[in-house]
Amino acid sequence: MPPLAELHFRHVAVIGKYNAVGSRGAIDTLAHFLLQQGCAVSLERETALNTGLDQHPVLDVSEIGQHCDLALVLGGDGTMLGIGRQLARQNVPLVGINQGRLGFITDIPWQGYAPVLQAMLHGQFVHDRRALMHASVWRDGQCVFETIAMNDVVVNRGSAPSMIELRVEVDGHFVAKQRADGLVIATPTGCTAYALSAGGPLLHPAIDGWIMAPIAPHTLTNRPIVLPASGEIAVEVVSGRDASAHFDMQSFTSLLHGDRIVVRRAAHQLCLLHPLGWSFFDTLRRKLHWNEGGVG
Amino acid sequence: MPPLAELHFRHVAVIGKYNAVGSRGAIDTLAHFLLQQGCAVSLERETALNTGLDQHPVLDVSEIGQHCDLALVLGGDGTMLGIGRQLARQNVPLVGINQGRLGFITDIPWQGYAPVLQAMLHGQFVHDRRALMHASVWRDGQCVFETIAMNDVVVNRGSAPSMIELRVEVDGHFVAKQRADGLVIATPTGCTAYALSAGGPLLHPAIDGWIMAPIAPHTLTNRPIVLPASGEIAVEVVSGRDASAHFDMQSFTSLLHGDRIVVRRAAHQLCLLHPLGWSFFDTLRRKLHWNEGGVG
Amino acid sequence: MPPLAELHFRHVAVIGKYNAVGSRGAIDTLAHFLLQQGCAVSLERETALNTGLDQHPVLDVSEIGQHCDLALVLGGDGTMLGIGRQLARQNVPLVGINQGRLGFITDIPWQGYAPVLQAMLHGQFVHDRRALMHASVWRDGQCVFETIAMNDVVVNRGSAPSMIELRVEVDGHFVAKQRADGLVIATPTGCTAYALSAGGPLLHPAIDGWIMAPIAPHTLTNRPIVLPASGEIAVEVVSGRDASAHFDMQSFTSLLHGDRIVVRRAAHQLCLLHPLGWSFFDTLRRKLHWNEGGVG
Amino acid sequence: MPPLAELHFRHVAVIGKYNAVGSRGAIDTLAHFLLQQGCAVSLERETALNTGLDQHPVLDVSEIGQHCDLALVLGGDGTMLGIGRQLARQNVPLVGINQGRLGFITDIPWQGYAPVLQAMLHGQFVHDRRALMHASVWRDGQCVFETIAMNDVVVNRGSAPSMIELRVEVDGHFVAKQRADGLVIATPTGCTAYALSAGGPLLHPAIDGWIMAPIAPHTLTNRPIVLPASGEIAVEVVSGRDASAHFDMQSFTSLLHGDRIVVRRAAHQLCLLHPLGWSFFDTLRRKLHWNEGGVG
Repeated sequence: MPPLAELHFRHVAVIGKYNAVGSRGAIDTLAHFLLQQGCAVSLERETALNTGLDQHPVLDVSEIGQHCDLALVLGGDGTMLGIGRQLARQNVPLVGINQGRLGFITDIPWQGYAPVLQAMLHGQFVHDRRALMHASVWRDGQCVFETIAMNDVVVNRGSAPSMIELRVEVDGHFVAKQRADGLVIATPTGCTAYALSAGGPLLHPAIDGWIMAPIAPHTLTNRPIVLPASGEIAVEVVSGRDASAHFDMQSFTSLLHGDRIVVRRAAHQLCLLHPLGWSFFDTLRRKLHWNEGGVG
Repeated sequence: MPPLAELHFRHVAVIGKYNAVGSRGAIDTLAHFLLQQGCAVSLERETALNTGLDQHPVLDVSEIGQHCDLALVLGGDGTMLGIGRQLARQNVPLVGINQGRLGFITDIPWQGYAPVLQAMLHGQFVHDRRALMHASVWRDGQCVFETIAMNDVVVNRGSAPSMIELRVEVDGHFVAKQRADGLVIATPTGCTAYALSAGGPLLHPAIDGWIMAPIAPHTLTNRPIVLPASGEIAVEVVSGRDASAHFDMQSFTSLLHGDRIVVRRAAHQLCLLHPLGWSFFDTLRRKLHWNEGGVG
Repeated sequence: MPPLAELHFRHVAVIGKYNAVGSRGAIDTLAHFLLQQGCAVSLERETALNTGLDQHPVLDVSEIGQHCDLALVLGGDGTMLGIGRQLARQNVPLVGINQGRLGFITDIPWQGYAPVLQAMLHGQFVHDRRALMHASVWRDGQCVFETIAMNDVVVNRGSAPSMIELRVEVDGHFVAKQRADGLVIATPTGCTAYALSAGGPLLHPAIDGWIMAPIAPHTLTNRPIVLPASGEIAVEVVSGRDASAHFDMQSFTSLLHGDRIVVRRAAHQLCLLHPLGWSFFDTLRRKLHWNEGGVG
Repeated sequence: MPPLAELHFRHVAVIGKYNAVGSRGAIDTLAHFLLQQGCAVSLERETALNTGLDQHPVLDVSEIGQHCDLALVLGGDGTMLGIGRQLARQNVPLVGINQGRLGFITDIPWQGYAPVLQAMLHGQFVHDRRALMHASVWRDGQCVFETIAMNDVVVNRGSAPSMIELRVEVDGHFVAKQRADGLVIATPTGCTAYALSAGGPLLHPAIDGWIMAPIAPHTLTNRPIVLPASGEIAVEVVSGRDASAHFDMQSFTSLLHGDRIVVRRAAHQLCLLHPLGWSFFDTLRRKLHWNEGGVG
């Protein structure tokens, strides 16, 4: 290991898994470790409340960007996605530490976190920028909902057994009418989530594009397509009952015929930091059980 | 064409597409054609009501089996499935005539029906027996719903964006827990419907099995599987919100955790008749646009 | 465990993995175990030669059927397939013991084999009959090659990058012309081998059918299809260079345009024996890594 | 249609389908049309030879770039790919006119070409730039072959029925060992060719990436992946017999274990011109038979 350069991050926010009372000890340990390294430490407000830790300054998520130059997240991919969506506009990079099974983006195991984190605090890290989607719902020419999605935007049917019909345009060009259970539009970050189940390809994080994949399409040639993130995708609900749209875990239900879901690249990116030597491919190999010799 | 043998069917029921007022002329024409051929003709009650034709005896579907030895259906696959489910237990064979785009099981085009039908009435036809599924829903050890399905039984999630978890057993053997949008169990007749969209294989009608295919499964190795129709498949809802079960077009909503959907072979078969020379493969080739030289 | 009934098998042939010198100790141990149980024991000739064990009578594979009522195979699925193809016509059931990673059909682990095998020798076992394919190659109306396949028959292109065109008939009915890298026709036993890689479904061993799956087909709607094993599938090479046919691991190269590969059910079945409680689904779950919580 | 601006292209090369004697009339017609429009016209040398037309100056492909500012190609996608690979480095844009079924990149029908081409000659066109791959084969540290590919680079096994094993690296990072029939790396232009048969996604031409898709992979989780075109992909042959590499239609056979096929973005792009209003999505919809109401 090369000699450590000077401290790269001055003030670190520590954020724990939502509602995870049991992570109190780990949060406490991390906070003390950061103090030892010479960083100022603040706890995100909910994290402080859930753990009852009261020795550290407390910040709302919206304040972290003003005060901190790094956010340290203890939890899984879901926690990272939840907090990342909020921190993206504040340009605070995130580091993820995982007490359980490693995720796609939370890749530092709790066991042995200290030397890894120490090196990162001193500037030895890899940047991993992830594009986010800005999504909106339009009804009668009015925007009735808008949000940011890190993984995917899904438009799907209700529980009734009939397909919905969606009309897709890209930058004003008609693409196709699709009859299917629904449609998923995923970022590279979301390519390993629902889009993969729907038959979508893997997408390297550096690809400036989204996957658009039909879910159980009526027409067999309706294959997943990778579209430029620089464009605007509009999905109109043509027919079908109880259609709804989902933006990561947020939902907009009761879509009407004629409603349009519009997806474009968000103004901000999520910035993840990984230990030196990190490779997206190592993560894929581990999570997809490649090279384990079997059929699966 | 060989010389015609004597008339094979004595009394033919004529059945039209539900709610299809516009088919009055065609129904009338068919009825007169059958009379000319020497058959007795009855109209199914709803068909008579919808068309206003009143020159022919009228029978309830439940009476057709007692009086008729053939049912002539004017309509598409959906009409055939609806009526076929009811006629299967009466052992009345069906012939399908289609005014629009030919279907998978309604394969006689309205244009030029007369010589084709004449030959069939005189015994020149191919038998095509289709297995049906008997499906039931069990709650707390009680059967709370049961029905017959010709195409498929589907258990799926509601419109919320989270997968459901299903536990599958075959003949009491544990098969797998599956996290997915749902699961489709299809007959050979249903293999070209929703199961195909879910990634299932084609199944020749003579195969004594069902396709069980997950819909957008979380685990990539959860591939479609063909199971013996002689066995009993039980699908238990383990977790997930708003799960529902669908049997062709009938639905059982609000499944609870612990509910079991049980599928076995029904006691009766559907019997379709086709013109001599009919081949399942010709139908596949036409409907799937094989051999048209293109990508799709 | 229930009390043991009397010995069910009188004379057991022991067969080891081809060319596996290192299995001498295990073969020796198994033979002594069988003697202790009261069975007569013979070694298959190659097994005796490879291991140098000379205390037991030696039989050619062709003689095993006359003398033995069980064949005990030490090795993996490949060994079982090789010997099974030969023993099928002799109606000798097989039991597979595996020193390494368990296979799809060799499912008794070497560790702890003794009580399992003891119970089976006394009649506590499950029958698992597997259909075999009889395959032949026809040129100018003459049969120029024939063999038995347990897994699959594959017709594929050479290494040149152009597809071949194949014309498929089933029982004399034209099915389709297919442009693809090739075509695999697999038994239920072979459904987890190459056919799975080509996108085929899983097939329960009790299904009386074959999977026919195109390999990288030009037409996207050319989906895998399950065909009745009772029929005859004929694949004709229409165009393409260097086409060849493969029957499990045997190859027939240099196919000419017009050559036909014909597949039908073989007269004999392979009979595998498994311990009581064995389930095909347990094997699938283990081999395909279902229910391990991950994406893969 | 807006009034025509002044002539945009001064000197047009006309190129016909290789070996297509029958296209003489159409080539002659096109050349006269161009002259009437005020363009200078040259015939590509092979086109002149094949057609016997001798009224126009003749240019080698290598000379077209020095003299012409547009190449007009009469033929299908294959002709365009062949000539495009050569013209890309000369920065001459191509227009494709098709006498048969329209292709993915030859999209002007012969019927009614005149007003379409007239408008394009006067500047009314859409640019469609396509990235090309530079591919090379390395043995013992030496480059033994290099070329340009517009569609795809394929590494595959020979006709023997055993898979090959390939080791993939991207920018020096290990990605995976893959056992499969082979591997296809495709440009956006090639996404609708072999990669689609192998299960790859569609890729909008503006995506700066390649598809890497395994062909019939042993491991089910080896899904197609979209990789940045800015990186370097290296595929090493680890094991398997008779492996070969293919670059569009050029082949490098007899790969040895340890040989590496390296793919990166070529220095030049192909520039296609389309009529105003052209959309990639219109082409997809037409070629993939979307929205034709059927299953296929």
